[in-house]
Amino acid sequence: MSTAPALYLHPDRLFPAERGQRDIARRLYAAVCDLPIISPHGHTDPRWFADDLPFDNPAALLVQPDHYLLRMLYSQGVPLEQLGIPRADGAPVQDDTREVWRSFAAHYYLFRGTPSRLWLDHVFAVVFGLEQQLAPASADHYYERIDACLREPDFRPRALFERFNIEVLATTESPLDDLRHHDAIAASGWGGRVITTFRPDPVLDPEHDGFAANLQQLGELTGESVETFDGYLNALRNRREYFRRRGATATDHGHPSARTADLGDADKRALYDRVRSGQCTAQDAELFRAQMLTEMAAMSLEDGMVMQLHPGSYRNHNGFLLEQFGRDKGADIPVATEYVHALRPLLERFGNEPDFSLILFTLDETSYSRELAPLAGHYPALKLGPAWWFHDSPEGMRRYREQVTESAGFYNTVGFNDDTRAFLSIPARHDVARRVDCAFLARLVAEHRLGEDEAQELAADLSYHLAKRAYRL
Amino acid sequence: MSTAPALYLHPDRLFPAERGQRDIARRLYAAVCDLPIISPHGHTDPRWFADDLPFDNPAALLVQPDHYLLRMLYSQGVPLEQLGIPRADGAPVQDDTREVWRSFAAHYYLFRGTPSRLWLDHVFAVVFGLEQQLAPASADHYYERIDACLREPDFRPRALFERFNIEVLATTESPLDDLRHHDAIAASGWGGRVITTFRPDPVLDPEHDGFAANLQQLGELTGESVETFDGYLNALRNRREYFRRRGATATDHGHPSARTADLGDADKRALYDRVRSGQCTAQDAELFRAQMLTEMAAMSLEDGMVMQLHPGSYRNHNGFLLEQFGRDKGADIPVATEYVHALRPLLERFGNEPDFSLILFTLDETSYSRELAPLAGHYPALKLGPAWWFHDSPEGMRRYREQVTESAGFYNTVGFNDDTRAFLSIPARHDVARRVDCAFLARLVAEHRLGEDEAQELAADLSYHLAKRAYRL
Amino acid sequence: MSTAPALYLHPDRLFPAERGQRDIARRLYAAVCDLPIISPHGHTDPRWFADDLPFDNPAALLVQPDHYLLRMLYSQGVPLEQLGIPRADGAPVQDDTREVWRSFAAHYYLFRGTPSRLWLDHVFAVVFGLEQQLAPASADHYYERIDACLREPDFRPRALFERFNIEVLATTESPLDDLRHHDAIAASGWGGRVITTFRPDPVLDPEHDGFAANLQQLGELTGESVETFDGYLNALRNRREYFRRRGATATDHGHPSARTADLGDADKRALYDRVRSGQCTAQDAELFRAQMLTEMAAMSLEDGMVMQLHPGSYRNHNGFLLEQFGRDKGADIPVATEYVHALRPLLERFGNEPDFSLILFTLDETSYSRELAPLAGHYPALKLGPAWWFHDSPEGMRRYREQVTESAGFYNTVGFNDDTRAFLSIPARHDVARRVDCAFLARLVAEHRLGEDEAQELAADLSYHLAKRAYRL
Repeated sequence: MSTAPALYLHPDRLFPAERGQRDIARRLYAAVCDLPIISPHGHTDPRWFADDLPFDNPAALLVQPDHYLLRMLYSQGVPLEQLGIPRADGAPVQDDTREVWRSFAAHYYLFRGTPSRLWLDHVFAVVFGLEQQLAPASADHYYERIDACLREPDFRPRALFERFNIEVLATTESPLDDLRHHDAIAASGWGGRVITTFRPDPVLDPEHDGFAANLQQLGELTGESVETFDGYLNALRNRREYFRRRGATATDHGHPSARTADLGDADKRALYDRVRSGQCTAQDAELFRAQMLTEMAAMSLEDGMVMQLHPGSYRNHNGFLLEQFGRDKGADIPVATEYVHALRPLLERFGNEPDFSLILFTLDETSYSRELAPLAGHYPALKLGPAWWFHDSPEGMRRYREQVTESAGFYNTVGFNDDTRAFLSIPARHDVARRVDCAFLARLVAEHRLGEDEAQELAADLSYHLAKRAYRL
Repeated sequence: MSTAPALYLHPDRLFPAERGQRDIARRLYAAVCDLPIISPHGHTDPRWFADDLPFDNPAALLVQPDHYLLRMLYSQGVPLEQLGIPRADGAPVQDDTREVWRSFAAHYYLFRGTPSRLWLDHVFAVVFGLEQQLAPASADHYYERIDACLREPDFRPRALFERFNIEVLATTESPLDDLRHHDAIAASGWGGRVITTFRPDPVLDPEHDGFAANLQQLGELTGESVETFDGYLNALRNRREYFRRRGATATDHGHPSARTADLGDADKRALYDRVRSGQCTAQDAELFRAQMLTEMAAMSLEDGMVMQLHPGSYRNHNGFLLEQFGRDKGADIPVATEYVHALRPLLERFGNEPDFSLILFTLDETSYSRELAPLAGHYPALKLGPAWWFHDSPEGMRRYREQVTESAGFYNTVGFNDDTRAFLSIPARHDVARRVDCAFLARLVAEHRLGEDEAQELAADLSYHLAKRAYRL
Repeated sequence: MSTAPALYLHPDRLFPAERGQRDIARRLYAAVCDLPIISPHGHTDPRWFADDLPFDNPAALLVQPDHYLLRMLYSQGVPLEQLGIPRADGAPVQDDTREVWRSFAAHYYLFRGTPSRLWLDHVFAVVFGLEQQLAPASADHYYERIDACLREPDFRPRALFERFNIEVLATTESPLDDLRHHDAIAASGWGGRVITTFRPDPVLDPEHDGFAANLQQLGELTGESVETFDGYLNALRNRREYFRRRGATATDHGHPSARTADLGDADKRALYDRVRSGQCTAQDAELFRAQMLTEMAAMSLEDGMVMQLHPGSYRNHNGFLLEQFGRDKGADIPVATEYVHALRPLLERFGNEPDFSLILFTLDETSYSRELAPLAGHYPALKLGPAWWFHDSPEGMRRYREQVTESAGFYNTVGFNDDTRAFLSIPARHDVARRVDCAFLARLVAEHRLGEDEAQELAADLSYHLAKRAYRL
């Protein structure tokens, strides 16, 4: 099968139109486009790499799990039933995946100007060798070609992992996960490096679904008593160690806000008792999450795990959708997020520790130049994660570099995270990031703000080295 | 009279300087520049088109009613008296309109880099055929030329409407308006389509001037008792129907915030009683406005009127100016505006209704990428209005597209609104919007993020079709 | 010594890459690059110009006092001890300034993409004639060359002042300062114009270090009783006059927020009593600062001093650093700052006064288009200061012009402030500002939004005339 890019995937895409800058961008990109992929934060399913079974059909692989696609299609009046998303009430939904694919193709024009379009075109052209852009008329051809590919050995998860030149891929699991798939991968002898990430929200956030049961399970798994705050902390320490032994080098925290706290011992214990009893207020829950970030930071200093904070998403904003179709269907909405006051308690404890590393993300771009770049440009313990989620896009990445670099420089950032569950799009996402970074660097060179030799070094750092270093990989 | 553009109105204005992009922008623009104007939201006076009398002198037409001009001139020390704006205390002001015009011309340099300059130059060059740019030395020539034109039949409102190629023009009226001018236009047999918009702030906002009297008048007009909440809602329903029969397809709401509410029946009635008694607090007033947005949404679902929300302006910030010169003299200032929590009560009721449409505007650009694009990119009921007021400008429109498109796409936006009372500037404003959109699209094409055929289709959608569809025209 | 720019300082730096725009930018810049420097707001030490002694070694001159450098180096793990910053506890720090310089050179790559790099390269190339860019290998060469220069008469403060073509330089002093250095400069017969600025935070802010002692000293200096609010105001009036006689034309206020107040007489006096007694709450302190801004505005109207407000910095965010190394080591972080409600009390009193001038600054870029440009584009008393501190950078300045100009125009801005204590970087900073403004204007010209003749006039206004006029120099 040909892997030559199709005509709709131009080799100069995302480079500046102005000739001089484009030439510089091309040179910078040429030296980094084939570097291995470091994917230190994402949501792929480790089972894929443990079992190495073929992926399902095109719709199940590329449309139904992608909340970026679901949100846009739904916003334009396409019912989720028509896309084959199961309903909680068991009412019938479209179960012909070819029809789902046709609905998607019929609305592909909606994605003009969005990153989904860039990623999908890359997958279609580079992974599946499709030569014409997806359109209603080519829906069936696309479906058949992709479906046929998926039955071939070259399109099994491990083969794609290798073809994608992934050096390391991090998944994300709950502390309650037994990590059996990671164990299976390790036991299989396959050489792909798939590591886990410790994401303790289910046992840190009193407002998480099933928090009480989660606590109990945490106690059982670890043999620690979660009746006391000290036992609870020991249980967490225990699971961190369990994760670390499966390769985890990082934790991740998805709180509603960036608030941290540093309470005295008696207050912490009293708060934990309220939380554990299920009788905590919303204020208690927020304070507990805040305190637990500081506790996690303390443990990071002990065990060396890098800490990530992803705050500021209003999850499941659409009650009807949550009820009928569940989480992660494209109804999470960013909210304004404050960092300067919020992080201070944690930073007062650990901000000056050279061995502690907290990587900050945001959905609120106003914090880039006002809060995050100044904070990361000062505290040894802080680094900035890349443009995230809604801002993981060409314009979003450009704004990120323009608004972050002058106060934080490049070396307080950590390269790219694809943050995706869409495995096939991983090369596309890293490619977009590399192109946009090269375009940004090319402008600095063309405006004589940076030497091209420096830009070349930076391009490799942003594409590869910074992620590897920041995540201790 | 020549209508060839003057030299100071360059045919390539607002297009990117880089040659390749400029060529693309020219081609895109050439295919849309002559499309009819859809003006679905604005503030022109329907009396103009009912009576079709000549406009007054140049100062009264172009300077004195334009709050963009007044604010800038005032900020630089030009007293409003010198511009002939009447004082509440009856103290003398400049009544020689030629002198007013000279003051304006003497300060025309202040508008460098502002959209007012672009709009005015367009009006001067294209509508009045003036060949040299306005300057102090040409003030009298300008005055005389414009004054002479205004006496000619070709410069009467209906003639200009036709010359401007306006397909539909929406004005905005209070529910208490009898719409006699719209009736007169309809009765006249003239073919121009001038429709009204239902703007119920005077009877929805307890803090509106004369609210109590307005309520009473609403009752009298409709024969409904406004003593009860149900009667009040019926009266509103009645007036909506009255407006709909005069062509209205939309309502508009100018609240201080975007807050919505969805109270139970007893709470609504009790709140209405407090509001009607004139004994409501500021919190009550805010809650009542919030509740009434949800009530208006319910009625929109009944009668099919599209709903517009224009929140976030601190009206009449300058107390002295309000007292001496009245409203709309350029002293309204934007404030930070939150949407995610504010809109949730309404969206929980109607956000998933395919037949309900709420068009959101903002004066707070930080909400574009953080809140509005994610919301509109998910909810079927939401669309985004164009860059508004202070942001209705080349840079403002560019930021809008850059910050909105990647999450909401193009098809969750509704094309352009001129939102103006400056009738003569309507073609100029639409022209600026078309040029800026073509420039944005040209960049996407030049960077190989979009095919030129797609961009051409989008240019027509953004210039014409989206507005027509969104406003059900 | 050659003053020809080194190769690493390209003559076209910061100009747009696109050929047409670059040519315009070059022409605009050529006509302004040699205009004298107006530096109306900064923090250089007047003693330098009074005593005219040689500067110390390269590290003491260029590294150790520069909080931009300290913050970045510290963020990347360089201990301040290694940079020779003295500790409060007297523990040993690096005292070999050549070693300090080597540490700096070893980390010079961290500044890629930052304004510090642009400023330093300018200093190295233009002031010291260094021909190769700073790198670890050239650290010693740099140190020796700069050190040798500093011993020459041409590098004494007054000689540099003249070489830099500074027309006027404002320093900033506390009301408690006796201004002896300014008196010495005046008495010396040297022609350089070095004026002071009245910065009353130490006696206006109840939370300022040593506020009570400062009040007492203020009373002693002026012979006024600070036991009463009226005496306190008289004392301030007295010191303003003292400053005005030493050339001050402006006051400056560095409050945490932009809040203003306009209390009645009894409330003011009661508040002052609480503040003076040392028993005021944080709310009292904030209210007192707010009230005092209005009092300062009243005095500005009496004595003609221009007022500057620099709000929104969270000072000394890092407690450990403050304790060990003191203030101004790069740990001040911006916070969100509101202006529309905050300034209203003051504006209701003085916003319409043509003889009062308040220059606003911000660290919160979201206020540019939403609040500051609309306010300054309306109130005669308001002007906007340039992009400040973290935003005093090429991208920051570009965003400032793009977000401010369309609502406030150019003439409600006040040209450039270098705001620096790094004397040698003053020409570099003004040069960056002139280049970025010329680049912005060149884009407007290339996009036919402005005539080149207008742009040329604006370039001179932005580089020179506006600052002179705004600060009444």
